[in-house]
Amino acid sequence: MAPQYTIHQRQCHLKWDNSIPPVATVASGSVVNFDCLDASNGQINASSTIESVARMDFSQVDQVNGPIFVEDAEPGDVLEVEFLELETADWGWTANIPGFGALADVFEAPALKIWKIEKDENGQHFTWFKEGKIRILTAPFCGEIGVARGEKGAFSTIPPYRTGGNIDTKHITLGTKIYLPIEVKGALFSVGDGHAAQGDGECCGTAIETPMKVSVRLTIHKNMPYVKEPSFLTPGPLASNFNTGKHYSTLGIDPNLREATKKAVTFMVDYLESVHDLTRVEAYMLCSVCVDLKMCEVVDMPNYAIGAFFPLSVFV
Amino acid sequence: MAPQYTIHQRQCHLKWDNSIPPVATVASGSVVNFDCLDASNGQINASSTIESVARMDFSQVDQVNGPIFVEDAEPGDVLEVEFLELETADWGWTANIPGFGALADVFEAPALKIWKIEKDENGQHFTWFKEGKIRILTAPFCGEIGVARGEKGAFSTIPPYRTGGNIDTKHITLGTKIYLPIEVKGALFSVGDGHAAQGDGECCGTAIETPMKVSVRLTIHKNMPYVKEPSFLTPGPLASNFNTGKHYSTLGIDPNLREATKKAVTFMVDYLESVHDLTRVEAYMLCSVCVDLKMCEVVDMPNYAIGAFFPLSVFV
Repeated sequence: MAPQYTIHQRQCHLKWDNSIPPVATVASGSVVNFDCLDASNGQINASSTIESVARMDFSQVDQVNGPIFVEDAEPGDVLEVEFLELETADWGWTANIPGFGALADVFEAPALKIWKIEKDENGQHFTWFKEGKIRILTAPFCGEIGVARGEKGAFSTIPPYRTGGNIDTKHITLGTKIYLPIEVKGALFSVGDGHAAQGDGECCGTAIETPMKVSVRLTIHKNMPYVKEPSFLTPGPLASNFNTGKHYSTLGIDPNLREATKKAVTFMVDYLESVHDLTRVEAYMLCSVCVDLKMCEVVDMPNYAIGAFFPLSVFV
Repeated sequence: MAPQYTIHQRQCHLKWDNSIPPVATVASGSVVNFDCLDASNGQINASSTIESVARMDFSQVDQVNGPIFVEDAEPGDVLEVEFLELETADWGWTANIPGFGALADVFEAPALKIWKIEKDENGQHFTWFKEGKIRILTAPFCGEIGVARGEKGAFSTIPPYRTGGNIDTKHITLGTKIYLPIEVKGALFSVGDGHAAQGDGECCGTAIETPMKVSVRLTIHKNMPYVKEPSFLTPGPLASNFNTGKHYSTLGIDPNLREATKKAVTFMVDYLESVHDLTRVEAYMLCSVCVDLKMCEVVDMPNYAIGAFFPLSVFV
């Protein structure tokens, strides 16, 4: 059996920078276990209040654990990362962070929701947005999954790159294999930013952020030249933790894709405020963890149709 | 029982124009049946060849059947359209039309696929992309669903508007209620552009285009001020005709949303060509009928992550 490796919370870095020394060197096919803090790098915990959001030091967020040097990995190869284990903490947080999020120009005040993550009698993890009323079934994944960029320098971990990073893609759940194009010798793989649940788009800018224990198998492929940016293979149907009942959907129609997206989210906030008795910032944060943004049509020029899909099954 | 109305193929119009006289006047709550030609307005049929695409008269496409004047409908009201029946013909078509589609700058030559729509022993309709190899389960809907615009003039039926029209939104399947903001007295509702199956985005610009028999119930709502653009309520989980197995997904990472989208589709075409032995234009047209474009993240600035999701279950 191949040796296993364990990477601890403090073995992390705050930039993508190919000059950062690896925390471990492993052979292709190795399993590596990571113990990751949440994306605030420990600045928010289960007893935090809104002051923690207002005070947050942005230079310390979205740390990633690693990097891992994978033997025989060369630029032009592809790194396969198979998710063998994804275990959230028993709590998480969602915030509206001023200046961040799809509707940052409208939602200017900080807001914070602390979630308690529980398990039902069937072993399904869930968490209440409003106790007894609005319940989210979790589907854990890591927002940050990436390898070092080929370019020299220190690059923010906030945006994703062609080498991955903060792709915040909720479909990369347990059993999924993600393929990353390698740009430097050894690949230099890192992971972090645990999410207990998120909608496609992560519209307010945060998901259910949580510390995460992650186990991955790292495998080098020499013959996947068609992988030019992150690609992935799911082990079965896409996670259906939200697709268990009726959906209400709002379309945003606009010649500008970003404006169409903002409209769709705004109209959903309008609906949730009007029909489901939520404040606007509550609605916005709830959308971030359970509303899927779909590109319904991108061809009928000059106008795009972007859809926000709200799963009404979260209302119990 | 309320009277029913039948609208024939020729009772159609080629522009959104609130001066077009209604083909029927109905009370709120009425059921209206439409017999719609395909989006080519009959220019393509089950025995057409690629020459029909090259010759297509674009001024005759995306006709819509109607308009229906709904009594008591006033500007500011909302029209609910409930889909009671959606029945495709036994054939359909998908084309790459020069100048149209998300990758129009790359796919310049016309291409055409004629589909035969069949029914399996369980009553599920399906159609072969490649006989015995690549099968699409259908989930019929109408691409065009709209009411007249308030502004005077004749507006193309190709783009969608805040009053609906060519929204090409595949989730508006049987039993769904769509809500449209009314801008003119009587609403002036029209429908058309039958699709047997489509992926989110309709990336090549055409779905499985088919003549469609449509039955809807039209109901006026006076008290839904939060409906500012088309919104809809599905009767249950989102159609899962594609979510029955593994998915391969390609991300496009870019500061420009349109470029990110084009990358995601291009990388999927690369994959289908490299791994599944399809020509590039075959792959592109197949993507249009079964690949979903999702906005995976729209907040980690400056880079967006758009995902193209291919359902591997179409390979039998």
